[in-house]
Amino acid sequence: MSATPITPAGPEPVVTADDPIRSGDPIPTPSSPPPDILRAASMELVVTDLAASRHFYVDVLGLVVTQEDDTCVYLRSFEEFIHHNLVLRAGPVAAVAALSYRVRSPADLDRAVAFYGELGCRVERRPEGFVAGVGDTVRVQDPLGFPYELFHDVQHVERLAWRYDLYTPGTLVRLDHFNQVTPDVPRAVAHLEDLGFRVTEDIQDEAGTTYAAWMRRKPTVHDTALTGGDGPRLHHVAFATHEKHNILAICDKLGALRLSDRIERGPGRHGVSNAFYLYLRDPDGHRIEIYTQDYYTGDPDNPVVTWDVHDNQRRDWWGNPVVPSWYTEASLVLDLDGVPQPVRARTDTSEMEVTIGADGFSYTRKGDSPEELPSWKQREYKLGHQL
Amino acid sequence: MSATPITPAGPEPVVTADDPIRSGDPIPTPSSPPPDILRAASMELVVTDLAASRHFYVDVLGLVVTQEDDTCVYLRSFEEFIHHNLVLRAGPVAAVAALSYRVRSPADLDRAVAFYGELGCRVERRPEGFVAGVGDTVRVQDPLGFPYELFHDVQHVERLAWRYDLYTPGTLVRLDHFNQVTPDVPRAVAHLEDLGFRVTEDIQDEAGTTYAAWMRRKPTVHDTALTGGDGPRLHHVAFATHEKHNILAICDKLGALRLSDRIERGPGRHGVSNAFYLYLRDPDGHRIEIYTQDYYTGDPDNPVVTWDVHDNQRRDWWGNPVVPSWYTEASLVLDLDGVPQPVRARTDTSEMEVTIGADGFSYTRKGDSPEELPSWKQREYKLGHQL
Amino acid sequence: MSATPITPAGPEPVVTADDPIRSGDPIPTPSSPPPDILRAASMELVVTDLAASRHFYVDVLGLVVTQEDDTCVYLRSFEEFIHHNLVLRAGPVAAVAALSYRVRSPADLDRAVAFYGELGCRVERRPEGFVAGVGDTVRVQDPLGFPYELFHDVQHVERLAWRYDLYTPGTLVRLDHFNQVTPDVPRAVAHLEDLGFRVTEDIQDEAGTTYAAWMRRKPTVHDTALTGGDGPRLHHVAFATHEKHNILAICDKLGALRLSDRIERGPGRHGVSNAFYLYLRDPDGHRIEIYTQDYYTGDPDNPVVTWDVHDNQRRDWWGNPVVPSWYTEASLVLDLDGVPQPVRARTDTSEMEVTIGADGFSYTRKGDSPEELPSWKQREYKLGHQL
Amino acid sequence: MSATPITPAGPEPVVTADDPIRSGDPIPTPSSPPPDILRAASMELVVTDLAASRHFYVDVLGLVVTQEDDTCVYLRSFEEFIHHNLVLRAGPVAAVAALSYRVRSPADLDRAVAFYGELGCRVERRPEGFVAGVGDTVRVQDPLGFPYELFHDVQHVERLAWRYDLYTPGTLVRLDHFNQVTPDVPRAVAHLEDLGFRVTEDIQDEAGTTYAAWMRRKPTVHDTALTGGDGPRLHHVAFATHEKHNILAICDKLGALRLSDRIERGPGRHGVSNAFYLYLRDPDGHRIEIYTQDYYTGDPDNPVVTWDVHDNQRRDWWGNPVVPSWYTEASLVLDLDGVPQPVRARTDTSEMEVTIGADGFSYTRKGDSPEELPSWKQREYKLGHQL
Repeated sequence: MSATPITPAGPEPVVTADDPIRSGDPIPTPSSPPPDILRAASMELVVTDLAASRHFYVDVLGLVVTQEDDTCVYLRSFEEFIHHNLVLRAGPVAAVAALSYRVRSPADLDRAVAFYGELGCRVERRPEGFVAGVGDTVRVQDPLGFPYELFHDVQHVERLAWRYDLYTPGTLVRLDHFNQVTPDVPRAVAHLEDLGFRVTEDIQDEAGTTYAAWMRRKPTVHDTALTGGDGPRLHHVAFATHEKHNILAICDKLGALRLSDRIERGPGRHGVSNAFYLYLRDPDGHRIEIYTQDYYTGDPDNPVVTWDVHDNQRRDWWGNPVVPSWYTEASLVLDLDGVPQPVRARTDTSEMEVTIGADGFSYTRKGDSPEELPSWKQREYKLGHQL
Repeated sequence: MSATPITPAGPEPVVTADDPIRSGDPIPTPSSPPPDILRAASMELVVTDLAASRHFYVDVLGLVVTQEDDTCVYLRSFEEFIHHNLVLRAGPVAAVAALSYRVRSPADLDRAVAFYGELGCRVERRPEGFVAGVGDTVRVQDPLGFPYELFHDVQHVERLAWRYDLYTPGTLVRLDHFNQVTPDVPRAVAHLEDLGFRVTEDIQDEAGTTYAAWMRRKPTVHDTALTGGDGPRLHHVAFATHEKHNILAICDKLGALRLSDRIERGPGRHGVSNAFYLYLRDPDGHRIEIYTQDYYTGDPDNPVVTWDVHDNQRRDWWGNPVVPSWYTEASLVLDLDGVPQPVRARTDTSEMEVTIGADGFSYTRKGDSPEELPSWKQREYKLGHQL
Repeated sequence: MSATPITPAGPEPVVTADDPIRSGDPIPTPSSPPPDILRAASMELVVTDLAASRHFYVDVLGLVVTQEDDTCVYLRSFEEFIHHNLVLRAGPVAAVAALSYRVRSPADLDRAVAFYGELGCRVERRPEGFVAGVGDTVRVQDPLGFPYELFHDVQHVERLAWRYDLYTPGTLVRLDHFNQVTPDVPRAVAHLEDLGFRVTEDIQDEAGTTYAAWMRRKPTVHDTALTGGDGPRLHHVAFATHEKHNILAICDKLGALRLSDRIERGPGRHGVSNAFYLYLRDPDGHRIEIYTQDYYTGDPDNPVVTWDVHDNQRRDWWGNPVVPSWYTEASLVLDLDGVPQPVRARTDTSEMEVTIGADGFSYTRKGDSPEELPSWKQREYKLGHQL
Repeated sequence: MSATPITPAGPEPVVTADDPIRSGDPIPTPSSPPPDILRAASMELVVTDLAASRHFYVDVLGLVVTQEDDTCVYLRSFEEFIHHNLVLRAGPVAAVAALSYRVRSPADLDRAVAFYGELGCRVERRPEGFVAGVGDTVRVQDPLGFPYELFHDVQHVERLAWRYDLYTPGTLVRLDHFNQVTPDVPRAVAHLEDLGFRVTEDIQDEAGTTYAAWMRRKPTVHDTALTGGDGPRLHHVAFATHEKHNILAICDKLGALRLSDRIERGPGRHGVSNAFYLYLRDPDGHRIEIYTQDYYTGDPDNPVVTWDVHDNQRRDWWGNPVVPSWYTEASLVLDLDGVPQPVRARTDTSEMEVTIGADGFSYTRKGDSPEELPSWKQREYKLGHQL
């Protein structure tokens, strides 16, 4: 049973049966079984101006307030039935306090304690939870430096899926995924595979350098992605809409509010994931993706799609260039004491440099030389040395 | 942690933490563990005019031919990577030869043999498969009389998700679910729960009669549904599109081809599942649903939504009536020898009779009397005795 | 230069260079030139419960209040720059007080006085207007019995086209057209041609009976349509959305508000006009169409499309049947004293009777016999005698 | 009756009752009345590789071939009933041979001859037309140097509006407008006003320099636009789709065909016109816009919207920057002998220089300083000196 490659005109991503990423410096695999993670469920963001952030997420983006007080706002999307998908917590430094996953059962928290304990990670468990609406919870500073949170027990709230009287043109219906910046992508991939994640797509070059990988628990393209760069940092958290026009409506509304400068990149169609996307920056600069329509990946032999880093349709299927800030900027993450984690530099080559930097290049059709770029692409793809 | 009910204006479906359906006449639960079913994967339809059926599924609906010969056409949807989602096989009597599920591993076929063997079902296992593209396969005449097929080993083919050069306005991207007609819904629910399915939504009346139930493996509203009626018969197989306009485009194309009489019901918005839908009938009368945008159900405590059978928004959120044929007509299913299964009559009250029959009634707002129906709804909801 | 007919599979509407409708009993053509009408601009509805109507048009449908007091609410759509498109006036009997057209210049009001005066119509001119926001106005009880209003001078207000912060999922952007019920369609067509309107499409039978005609000033399919039936009555007023999903969103919202019984017919695709449509009934039973995407008709030789009354795709391209109330119910219209006009019966055969009545028939493919109707269409198209 | 300004948060375009553009160097106004132009109807493009161009317009964009031979391909959109909207003619130098408008009656050609004759323009009239499908035609080298064509007599062909069996996901339904590059915009505006066009929107700076103007005959935002720059050249010709997703589908298809480098700018939402847009470049570099959903402008007092050249939402409502090639590149136009017209340089300041050049600036909110630009906008809006 072999996979037939995708064969569009021109160069194509390579489809393989197995994850093609190998780490030369792996984190040890614990002997304890990992917890059974269901899905990316929530994120806790520290924001420096709670009112400004509440305005952005509630009044502009339309997330629903489940609960709030002077220091915290708990928000959820329209199809969610658990207490929240996003916690905004007022604090002195904009950062990410937790990437929170839901696990299948209470016993998975015991497994988490054992799994991370074996790795020597600092683990903190609170039966009463760290935030409102959630019970027994494990938080850990994971081997990659990220503040992961795992919980099962959670308060149920009204699923607003049928509440079309409350829908706006850009309604967010679901938290879809996280995206983490980490210096050594293969090392991070191997660790998340130990934790039960599977690779669905990735970006490599011909030398085998891995620039990014997408990893899933629920059967979509990802619950989290690993983006090569200085880390640990959070690249973004993504919410889903039903249709593409919902994403366009968010752009239109930002224009009407004279907040169009919150749009960092897009809207566009991803090559990786095949989803339609938009990247926004919140008042603290935290990056939010709005995302819709990737594909089912739940079969264990779901083909892995590997994209060439020089393929300029990998990150935007329409060949629109990635703005440099999208590569270089990301949110700090906190340790369990609430202190920003130090950031280690990426050592492998950077995706930005090999694609739009002075010596970088991108192609629309494999084999095209940079000189064949039409004039309207030259500024984007050839003037990287001016950055 | 209690569930907060949905609270639209007027009557609402009831949300509970557990499946509220109980069978007084259950099929015994095997002691063997069930196979780990991934998803509804394919259906084999016997069609009486292969050319006519091929025209409908390929030229009109745009499914992709993976392989074909004089007696069989193997079709797949655009985001599929396994060999097929639909097999059209020429035969003398229109019927369903197999509802086919993919299982997680080869060992799950051993589990299936044990599970169904314990139930005294006829089981047939073929290492070479029953159809092209698939290897080791178990077929069983299940306790409800349906020809279930389970397989893991399957040929991979090109996933056409990125092939926008081949898309049509109504492209079908995924097989979503089956829907089975069975006389005793609670008995069928209990059996499918033994097989590892979970209830996501159901329709009941105040006396506790269950008219239908939706059950899932993959985290959508269903992989199969159970509809109360004379059975075993297949109600329909459903394919997904990306967006609602894709479904409208199928209707528009059928009009242009002067095939609008293939439209049986819809398009519309379901109450149950919250999905957008359309029901078509193929040249043999097999029913096909086109479906898009239900919601994530993968958490083990996903709330179960129970709809009142008299709520006229349960099957169409816009209150448009269900055409009687939709309740009464369905496809025969074959036993493992290819002989149509005899059909047993439903003994519980029928959904059609209690809603649009002579003594039936439906409401828009709970408490409304039938006399309050506006004139444009009276024909649909009060003249059932003329059927 | 001859027209090439449309040639879908099956029967087709007939395309001709000229209006094929001839009246045997025409209203005389005035020697005075008609006023230069720009477009259908506004309607004044008398409603019996102003609060209920305001709730429907503002809170449910999202029209914008330009001005209001205890007896009147003035509403406009999002792309409008004149004071209003709809006036709701509290009154004892639900009726239509005015179908209001904007004319090109103030001098066109003089032309209107001369034109209608020559026809012996009662004409009333008020320099201060009949409603707020409008200046010099002519109202007339036209030869067909309808209260037509003509004005040029009008207050400009903010065009909200760019105000995406205010958009809802079902935003209405424009008043598109009226639809009038009149006993003798050819007679009415001839009169409106005298007034400067042109036929774009119509419905006839083989004997030449005309059942309906669509007539335009602005270059869309219509500013008003003439529907054969007991009249003068108003069939509906139509507002446009940008896209089809906006119309679906209105249905979804009505479901969420448990107001789905306001949906009388649709949503669907019209054959005539090729537009996407939905018919609602307001709290008084006034019919509102939501409409999008017809085609440009502004060339003087725009081909006229004539549909066969028995073609069941003429009113719904998908072959979904027309609910009887849609044929039989309509709003009374007032004379200039505010008294409801008496209604004269249609003498030609009725569209409902020849299509879904006891002796009626409709086909999907010309030449099909009614016996060939699939089961799911038989109830709709063959049981008309039960109405 | 005064206009109420649009009042979004932040800076707004200014709405006025009259065209605010005045020319200090107008072309004389003829005493002869202008021809009555209905609409922008067709364009004749000279292409250097007819097969390549045919592939782009027919196979990729889906325009319909009405007629073709070895040197010419005549194409139309799906809702068109006249012979063609686009003529591709093989020739040695890529250029525009004619911008073709339809006039109301044959007599309008006489008016055109007199009108342009009075202006001293070279006029050529051919009763048999210049291209297939069209009869009596006037071509003129207009005072701005553009090859305008006027015709009334034209062959009717099948309007494919209802042919959903032929639709693709990106179907083009209508030619919408032209856009001409000309050095002196006010002078060109005054001349087109003499020809009967009206301004709907424009871009100015505080000193009163006019950078662009949109002018209409049919009641949309434009039949042609005037863009300040070295001219006469053609900036683009635009075709309309029904909905926004149709435009996205064109991008997706270009990606699948590895032709994404045909995308020059967009997709996006215009500020001016409020339409959704995409700019493509054909194999010769001719620019094609795909466009949908502007607004009705047919009233004689339709408010004129004037945008500040420094408002970075004027050309893209989402604040995405305009690629420099879009400002600088355009197609040559031919004189009546088929010789490319010499290009005269713009003398007023250029829109590109005042917005993204070394001394240029753009704002999201009026009053913001360039230093307040977020990092992701700085490259676009502050590094213009590197161009």
